[in-house]
Amino acid sequence: MDKIRIMQWGFGAMGSGMVELISKKSTMELVAVYDKREEYRGKKVSDILKGVNLDVEIVDDPLNILDNKKIDVVIMATSSFVKDVTDDIISVVKKGVNVISIAEEMAYPWISNKDLSQKMHDEALKHKVSIVGTGINPGFVLDALIIMMTGVCKRVDRIEASRINDLSPFGPTVMETQGVGITPGEFEDGLKKGTIVGHIGFPQSISLIANVMGIELDEIKEVREPIISKTKRETKYVKVDPGMVAGCKHIGYGIKDGKKVITLIHPQQIKPEIENIETGDYINIYGDPDIKLSIKPECPGGIGTIATAVNTVPLIVEAKPGLLSILDLPLLRIAN
Amino acid sequence: MDKIRIMQWGFGAMGSGMVELISKKSTMELVAVYDKREEYRGKKVSDILKGVNLDVEIVDDPLNILDNKKIDVVIMATSSFVKDVTDDIISVVKKGVNVISIAEEMAYPWISNKDLSQKMHDEALKHKVSIVGTGINPGFVLDALIIMMTGVCKRVDRIEASRINDLSPFGPTVMETQGVGITPGEFEDGLKKGTIVGHIGFPQSISLIANVMGIELDEIKEVREPIISKTKRETKYVKVDPGMVAGCKHIGYGIKDGKKVITLIHPQQIKPEIENIETGDYINIYGDPDIKLSIKPECPGGIGTIATAVNTVPLIVEAKPGLLSILDLPLLRIAN
Repeated sequence: MDKIRIMQWGFGAMGSGMVELISKKSTMELVAVYDKREEYRGKKVSDILKGVNLDVEIVDDPLNILDNKKIDVVIMATSSFVKDVTDDIISVVKKGVNVISIAEEMAYPWISNKDLSQKMHDEALKHKVSIVGTGINPGFVLDALIIMMTGVCKRVDRIEASRINDLSPFGPTVMETQGVGITPGEFEDGLKKGTIVGHIGFPQSISLIANVMGIELDEIKEVREPIISKTKRETKYVKVDPGMVAGCKHIGYGIKDGKKVITLIHPQQIKPEIENIETGDYINIYGDPDIKLSIKPECPGGIGTIATAVNTVPLIVEAKPGLLSILDLPLLRIAN
Repeated sequence: MDKIRIMQWGFGAMGSGMVELISKKSTMELVAVYDKREEYRGKKVSDILKGVNLDVEIVDDPLNILDNKKIDVVIMATSSFVKDVTDDIISVVKKGVNVISIAEEMAYPWISNKDLSQKMHDEALKHKVSIVGTGINPGFVLDALIIMMTGVCKRVDRIEASRINDLSPFGPTVMETQGVGITPGEFEDGLKKGTIVGHIGFPQSISLIANVMGIELDEIKEVREPIISKTKRETKYVKVDPGMVAGCKHIGYGIKDGKKVITLIHPQQIKPEIENIETGDYINIYGDPDIKLSIKPECPGGIGTIATAVNTVPLIVEAKPGLLSILDLPLLRIAN
């Protein structure tokens, strides 16, 4: 069988991880890498990724490459938001190429940007290709896996799930958007100003789950609270004294008739183990039967996003055309 | 949208549970029930299932019904083995109707009966309908869920999973096929004679997983050991004294180059809690990353099989034609 020919669009932490993984997959071939950063001009993958023997140049003219080389799938790892990726996605779709995006909002783009989603869907249908958003979360832990587990249930009344993870490996940007290392008052200010965002993806995950449950929600509500440290915590990038903020506890609710039918809880902090907090993914489904699932430690965020995106490649090649979601694809599985 | 019209084929413990569940699904309509047992002649569903207000007769001429009523899906709950269900499945397929089977071997029928599988596949293609095997196990816990979790992995080296459950609710037939209530010597004799079978489905689950991992196994090996009770255990149907057999520990291995790359462990016994054994489903994937998932207590067997079969109904209606497996269907989810 012919190898699936891939262009990596975006060569940051996630994109370069994907390139490395693609290089190990016998059914895939990396044909091109696009990144707009000046420092990559004239560089090859092997110049940047030590140990990856790939003679592929990092280019700044992706559409030209798409015109001149046969490419089956573009994996796009740039922004988190539909409004920032739509134009790029449509430009690829118009070349007749499938797109996998790890933009969090692309997990279910209809909820944040209906018109842009319709536009992407129409173009995908016209050019007979597929677009899908994926990633570890949204895309897997707090939606796809929950949905899969509803499949063994006769009835689902209510879902509560949490993902408790460790932010310690992340750099300054994540510390800022999660409010780590500041005072509770500064945290409140950051929420008001919109500089502290917590997790991106709750409306998407909650909408996917509600669809499956056959519920039209009255409201999706999000609450962000500071995780105030009782102890001294420290990483390479940030110091937290007792009384300061160690992270953001972000909760999303799907509400119907005044009841919280879907509750997704995602506290993200540095060094949770100092306060004896066990990281993990926890899914509780209340219905017939009740299901209590846990993954300890949690599915790792970075590796998980890289893996889900690359593992989606064989699935999108076979998928029906259109702007799809994880609900439209076959059972996710490791690609070879 | 039109309701999906269903015929239930087989009205035993599983089939009657499915009928009850279908009666609660707003997108489905139960059109007919077939069971060959004489005691059901002239009876309606509501005569047998108290509380289910269904005026559907239990008939003995299913093919006649398929000729005269529009039916979209037959759910077949009769035997465990491909050789016993193939003729029935093909008779339904020839009427242009999709089939969901809970026969354990149908989870991946190619491994036990290649020729019969090819025959089913050809007929399904000819008549543009789909056939799929499902159930809690095989069909979910020790295959589909494992496969889904490989989707967050960059690399999978080895899989070990176990399903520890409680046989206490089951009747005399299950006690006999699992060897409960006999001596270790009688257990050995039962294994030799083939009256003690343990779990049906390991070759199917192991083959599905190996396919996904891209491995051609050298051997699938099964080991059945008596679980010898240290305590007195008792159910409605069976008594077990210390030193006697409380159940069957059945292990399946998928072996490649002398290594057990897939190990599935399924100890089934009565009253495990007496010896402080916690029931549950446990999945360990060793690779990058390692994944440790647990479901406690285990996904219940009966309810889970009923639910997965009924929840597969909307998926099979939309599926491509042919003899399919869980690998070909979209993400399982609760049906409405």
